[in-house]
Amino acid sequence: MPHLVLNLRLPVLLCLSLAAGLAYGAEAAPHERARDLGIPFDGTPGPLNAITDIAGVLVGQTTLISGDGKLVVGKGPVRTGVTAVLPRGAESMQRFSFAGWYSQNGNGEMTGTTWVEESGFLESPVMITNTHSVGVVRDAVIAWRVAHGPPDQTESWWSLPVVAETWDGWLNDINGFHVKPGHVFQALDSARSGPVEEGAVGGGTGMVCNGFKGGIGTSSRKLSDKDGGYLVGVLVQCNYGRRQNLRIAGIPVGREIESEDPYAWMPSDIAEHGSIIVVVATNAPVLPHQLKRMARRVSLGIGRTGSIAGNGSGDIFIAFSTANAGASEISHGPVDLRMVPNDSMDPLFAATVEATEEAIVNAMIAATDMTGIDGHHVRALPHAELRAVLARYNRLVK
Amino acid sequence: MPHLVLNLRLPVLLCLSLAAGLAYGAEAAPHERARDLGIPFDGTPGPLNAITDIAGVLVGQTTLISGDGKLVVGKGPVRTGVTAVLPRGAESMQRFSFAGWYSQNGNGEMTGTTWVEESGFLESPVMITNTHSVGVVRDAVIAWRVAHGPPDQTESWWSLPVVAETWDGWLNDINGFHVKPGHVFQALDSARSGPVEEGAVGGGTGMVCNGFKGGIGTSSRKLSDKDGGYLVGVLVQCNYGRRQNLRIAGIPVGREIESEDPYAWMPSDIAEHGSIIVVVATNAPVLPHQLKRMARRVSLGIGRTGSIAGNGSGDIFIAFSTANAGASEISHGPVDLRMVPNDSMDPLFAATVEATEEAIVNAMIAATDMTGIDGHHVRALPHAELRAVLARYNRLVK
Amino acid sequence: MPHLVLNLRLPVLLCLSLAAGLAYGAEAAPHERARDLGIPFDGTPGPLNAITDIAGVLVGQTTLISGDGKLVVGKGPVRTGVTAVLPRGAESMQRFSFAGWYSQNGNGEMTGTTWVEESGFLESPVMITNTHSVGVVRDAVIAWRVAHGPPDQTESWWSLPVVAETWDGWLNDINGFHVKPGHVFQALDSARSGPVEEGAVGGGTGMVCNGFKGGIGTSSRKLSDKDGGYLVGVLVQCNYGRRQNLRIAGIPVGREIESEDPYAWMPSDIAEHGSIIVVVATNAPVLPHQLKRMARRVSLGIGRTGSIAGNGSGDIFIAFSTANAGASEISHGPVDLRMVPNDSMDPLFAATVEATEEAIVNAMIAATDMTGIDGHHVRALPHAELRAVLARYNRLVK
Amino acid sequence: MPHLVLNLRLPVLLCLSLAAGLAYGAEAAPHERARDLGIPFDGTPGPLNAITDIAGVLVGQTTLISGDGKLVVGKGPVRTGVTAVLPRGAESMQRFSFAGWYSQNGNGEMTGTTWVEESGFLESPVMITNTHSVGVVRDAVIAWRVAHGPPDQTESWWSLPVVAETWDGWLNDINGFHVKPGHVFQALDSARSGPVEEGAVGGGTGMVCNGFKGGIGTSSRKLSDKDGGYLVGVLVQCNYGRRQNLRIAGIPVGREIESEDPYAWMPSDIAEHGSIIVVVATNAPVLPHQLKRMARRVSLGIGRTGSIAGNGSGDIFIAFSTANAGASEISHGPVDLRMVPNDSMDPLFAATVEATEEAIVNAMIAATDMTGIDGHHVRALPHAELRAVLARYNRLVK
Repeated sequence: MPHLVLNLRLPVLLCLSLAAGLAYGAEAAPHERARDLGIPFDGTPGPLNAITDIAGVLVGQTTLISGDGKLVVGKGPVRTGVTAVLPRGAESMQRFSFAGWYSQNGNGEMTGTTWVEESGFLESPVMITNTHSVGVVRDAVIAWRVAHGPPDQTESWWSLPVVAETWDGWLNDINGFHVKPGHVFQALDSARSGPVEEGAVGGGTGMVCNGFKGGIGTSSRKLSDKDGGYLVGVLVQCNYGRRQNLRIAGIPVGREIESEDPYAWMPSDIAEHGSIIVVVATNAPVLPHQLKRMARRVSLGIGRTGSIAGNGSGDIFIAFSTANAGASEISHGPVDLRMVPNDSMDPLFAATVEATEEAIVNAMIAATDMTGIDGHHVRALPHAELRAVLARYNRLVK
Repeated sequence: MPHLVLNLRLPVLLCLSLAAGLAYGAEAAPHERARDLGIPFDGTPGPLNAITDIAGVLVGQTTLISGDGKLVVGKGPVRTGVTAVLPRGAESMQRFSFAGWYSQNGNGEMTGTTWVEESGFLESPVMITNTHSVGVVRDAVIAWRVAHGPPDQTESWWSLPVVAETWDGWLNDINGFHVKPGHVFQALDSARSGPVEEGAVGGGTGMVCNGFKGGIGTSSRKLSDKDGGYLVGVLVQCNYGRRQNLRIAGIPVGREIESEDPYAWMPSDIAEHGSIIVVVATNAPVLPHQLKRMARRVSLGIGRTGSIAGNGSGDIFIAFSTANAGASEISHGPVDLRMVPNDSMDPLFAATVEATEEAIVNAMIAATDMTGIDGHHVRALPHAELRAVLARYNRLVK
Repeated sequence: MPHLVLNLRLPVLLCLSLAAGLAYGAEAAPHERARDLGIPFDGTPGPLNAITDIAGVLVGQTTLISGDGKLVVGKGPVRTGVTAVLPRGAESMQRFSFAGWYSQNGNGEMTGTTWVEESGFLESPVMITNTHSVGVVRDAVIAWRVAHGPPDQTESWWSLPVVAETWDGWLNDINGFHVKPGHVFQALDSARSGPVEEGAVGGGTGMVCNGFKGGIGTSSRKLSDKDGGYLVGVLVQCNYGRRQNLRIAGIPVGREIESEDPYAWMPSDIAEHGSIIVVVATNAPVLPHQLKRMARRVSLGIGRTGSIAGNGSGDIFIAFSTANAGASEISHGPVDLRMVPNDSMDPLFAATVEATEEAIVNAMIAATDMTGIDGHHVRALPHAELRAVLARYNRLVK
Repeated sequence: MPHLVLNLRLPVLLCLSLAAGLAYGAEAAPHERARDLGIPFDGTPGPLNAITDIAGVLVGQTTLISGDGKLVVGKGPVRTGVTAVLPRGAESMQRFSFAGWYSQNGNGEMTGTTWVEESGFLESPVMITNTHSVGVVRDAVIAWRVAHGPPDQTESWWSLPVVAETWDGWLNDINGFHVKPGHVFQALDSARSGPVEEGAVGGGTGMVCNGFKGGIGTSSRKLSDKDGGYLVGVLVQCNYGRRQNLRIAGIPVGREIESEDPYAWMPSDIAEHGSIIVVVATNAPVLPHQLKRMARRVSLGIGRTGSIAGNGSGDIFIAFSTANAGASEISHGPVDLRMVPNDSMDPLFAATVEATEEAIVNAMIAATDMTGIDGHHVRALPHAELRAVLARYNRLVK
């Protein structure tokens, strides 16, 4: 199988070591984003309008696209990948981050959440892939740590990585298990700060969102100095929803754009299909229970886009903070922390809602048309038609 | 002895017999509703577009309004009340209903939820009042059952009533404890089917919502025959939100209607204040864990109205089903039940989201201006101005 | 003024001043405790072996005992009361305490838990009473704060007090609602440090535990200096269990002590009846999610006594920390905190388990025989017989 | 191609074909069990005193033991395996089972629980392995279903398998990832009814429990006809606890048996290390929320053995029912169910507590001494010494 690897740190080695697939790096041409089209959003974004606005947060993605035509399980076509979000860069598995999670609808997997809930800590990167590759990614994160981390001098180290998924079986040979450990290492090793590639990349490669092509999207908010000046970043792997329900800028645009509905075969045009994984990062010093509060606000951002959180949807959210970097220090006595008072959290809540809404639209705006298994074709949200609809409702800001 | 007036439906008499306040009955003139103004909503409402579309569900309300001018704790002014939702009419405390609940933000009280969660049953009416009167209402529900229910032959009966609240201290002498047991009996005894009075009535009397006058609102959805033909009804006591965030029909109307913000004194114009209690009823045969799923969808309906679920907000939701009427039969062996398959729940989810959104707007549309303690004045959402804003965005259906 | 009669044993006077009932003060003669009988327990208790070993924690109790003979609802006999645990003495409603809660079986009420879960704070005393008096106690806590607290300068203060209960209807005229606001004020105003009266006092007055007389019990543990030297205190209102299941020091003593089973009329001799409320206090600087972890350990202590957490049982636990006294400071910016590392929590977990087990046995050892409504008689656990059973199993330490 | 050997039941062949280790089949000689030693337990066991007493429940185990001496990561020594519990035999992934779960302490993984919680269904076998092999086992369950299940005619099938773990790194080269897909297929394909092999087998191969050798244990309870005659079975993978805390039959035997503590190097002798996974099966018709109630009772059974649920412990429990076999039928309309009334659940709760306690002791009694990596040696609980201790406390029944 062909191996075309962009932006590799060890391209040749990886090419040799990977069993299958085409791995794209992150040096793609800049893509349009929702604001470029004049779509209005609330709040003030950070410099990159991306989760990487939070210092220390790195994103790495491995994109696997190969083959065409009829599905042959184990052969392809392949439309899948892995996205890695590292809370504290290379230290993400030694220096833990306070975290909280929430499931709006649990038809999905996010491993490691039982320990997040118990301990209050995220002790690994957050990985996102397809539904049937969660296992390989999980164990590979451990293997990566074994290979890269400091030696385990206590002989009692273990890890419970956080790995989430959405289902790409409409476009991808999902039962072919094309994600391999090497793809996971690549996503982790290539993770970096700066702009995040959006659309049909990484774990989001084969996703479908609100009846159009979905994938990875991101956005951020910068609080006013009066409100602490904190940053909140969101990254979504967007695979949920039905066209009938889609609202952008509050307008039910899904009903007004003529386009084939990839899920027209479903029993009802209200039924949703697919999932959304949302990662929320902040540099505000918030405690685990406060991060759970932020995770619960993701639902309100998704609500703005018209979702009903259908039965088939895995709508699972995790929020972490890069503040309190010493919280997981190995210490016999107590460690020192800081906490934003509950009374000061509303701007963080608003930022979470707003950045979630925008990240979803960014994912759809960045995505392009894709044909996958058995000729299944999913059209991207057409920019000009979208603008035309919003203009009819006086909802364009430029 | 309040028990003597339990069966009266004579508000005038009650006004005389009760320690404080003027109790209004339910015979108010019909008020305008959101659809009357041409505001568009998704889905098909039931005949009454009210929670009482679900057969057996009764609503009773006691409204307490008296006094004017400066606050004298214990004297007034009084702007408060009680709303009762009876799942199975007079049998609500003998024949229990499957139920589930969810807290989007727990700055509020809903008693009885620990047992709802454990048992899967709602074993009482759902009562809604002001924050500082939850206790009196709770014990009064037990007293009402003691007075009305069958004798406790086992000598081991107890009750854990469900009573929720939102805070009306901006308009009401909330620390004067003006809700008395008799007001609770009145709400229970006067509960009935048919249209539900909305706006500044019952528990919603003194509420403020999204910067305008709030209160009680309701709506319902009727599923297509293909989807089972079930009904879903929603009743809200609406007291949450800031004007800046308010979206109606997806349009941020709160920013475009000139009006004094009653919460302009708060530290930030994004900060929310207040709460929303939502009661969801259905006749679909859904199990407790499925009702919890429905309760979680309320967040998505609130999300459509722009809420960020502020720190100060008690956003607590309960959903119950009137199906499976024999589920709580005293039986040595198993009881027979029916269950909607998970795969068929999406229309129920959509109905919950849609009816929540509409019930909130109905509460605001029905409410009228009110002046409470210390001259605090809260303006109702002005119908003509609202229509003008929506017309500018091409979002009126008539 | 009920406050004046707090320490009196003058029922007539109290009867005049209070609406109903006989209120005993706290100056009872010292009672025997489990260790006095030679029952072995794990761990090292604090100086008082009581929840009041934690500095700042005060306990106040109002005991209501009056009448004899046949039940006349509203008249008696009365066997009930109120127990108040104040986390930070007089400041308990101004200076909040981190807290977490857990329900092992939710056939009970603990109001205020939705906000404890959301905010991480306990913002009131923990009150314990009978099942049908939760409401009056809850509103009375608010009234007490209104009367005693600083004025509410923001005009936006509200309170969501924590009030729990167990059912005393086997001995008490529970539907007579004999607990009045004055009894609540009395419990709060008389709260003090030092030894805690145990047995049939306060909220525990009419309780039955494991087939014998139950009530209030307490115990504490002092961690070694190596483990931080922290204190953990437990107070229980003990009303759960069946004689068949009772284990003391691991021995199923309930099966070997000849005594009439007050619940012999129940359908099965395994079925439990009643409830247990457990309050855990510590001065260790633990965060809300860590306090929830401690609350979950209460189950293990109850497990040691043989409980199956029967369907009828409200087994609800709350844990709070008096450390981080500045956590709820009104502050625009972040506040400073300390946190015990998760890796150092095992001694706190062990202390919780051990002190729970001992507090339950203390409640039973301190209680004395009681006759209540309709001549229902509940025997106290007989000390000599208990010692004889334990001696047969070589399980006495003296 | 591992799929080729899926249907073989030839351990020798598998040993040759698999990359690492020696795979033992299930034909081991009968081992002693706790009752054989005269240890007393409450309740009446089913015919096999095993989880396989519940009709349809199959257990399959792959045991991997190879190598000796010093740890070389990737080479061994290997002391690990996989245990599979199939709720409905070969139909376990087509005909789902109502289920509920609970985490007493979440320092562990059980994948798939988010969907169990949401849907109320267990849709896969319950697999148990070591901490770092959860991923390979999870994906292999999907591969096994792809290979064995009916074709996916909707093209929209996905699976979220339930896979749990405990940590065997004290004896096993856990970072060598020795569990391979073939071992998972073997455990699934070899699953059968009848007696269950206990001790150091399957996922339990390398486990340490309460300072002695741990592993797999099982037990069951048969309810009286009066209580419905239902069966409750429990299977544990037992790896938790410290010797100081161990109670058998209520006696702290761990303190009286002279033996080297494998965790003597830990900072405190109260600190626990390790985990326990508990699977509860019943044929009683109980709903998902009732199964969660049963899962929560596991804590009480573990409590009887003296556990404090240490910070390092993953104490995660899942309960499922084989009744209501039609609950997951694909159906447009409602499906028919039966439900045990809440009031009749106490015998099910007692059975869960009792069978948990016994399964843990069975795991320890069946295990034999083992030496693993770096010469780490773990002694089995010595039968004669245990009997001697219990005899001193008059706690032997024969």
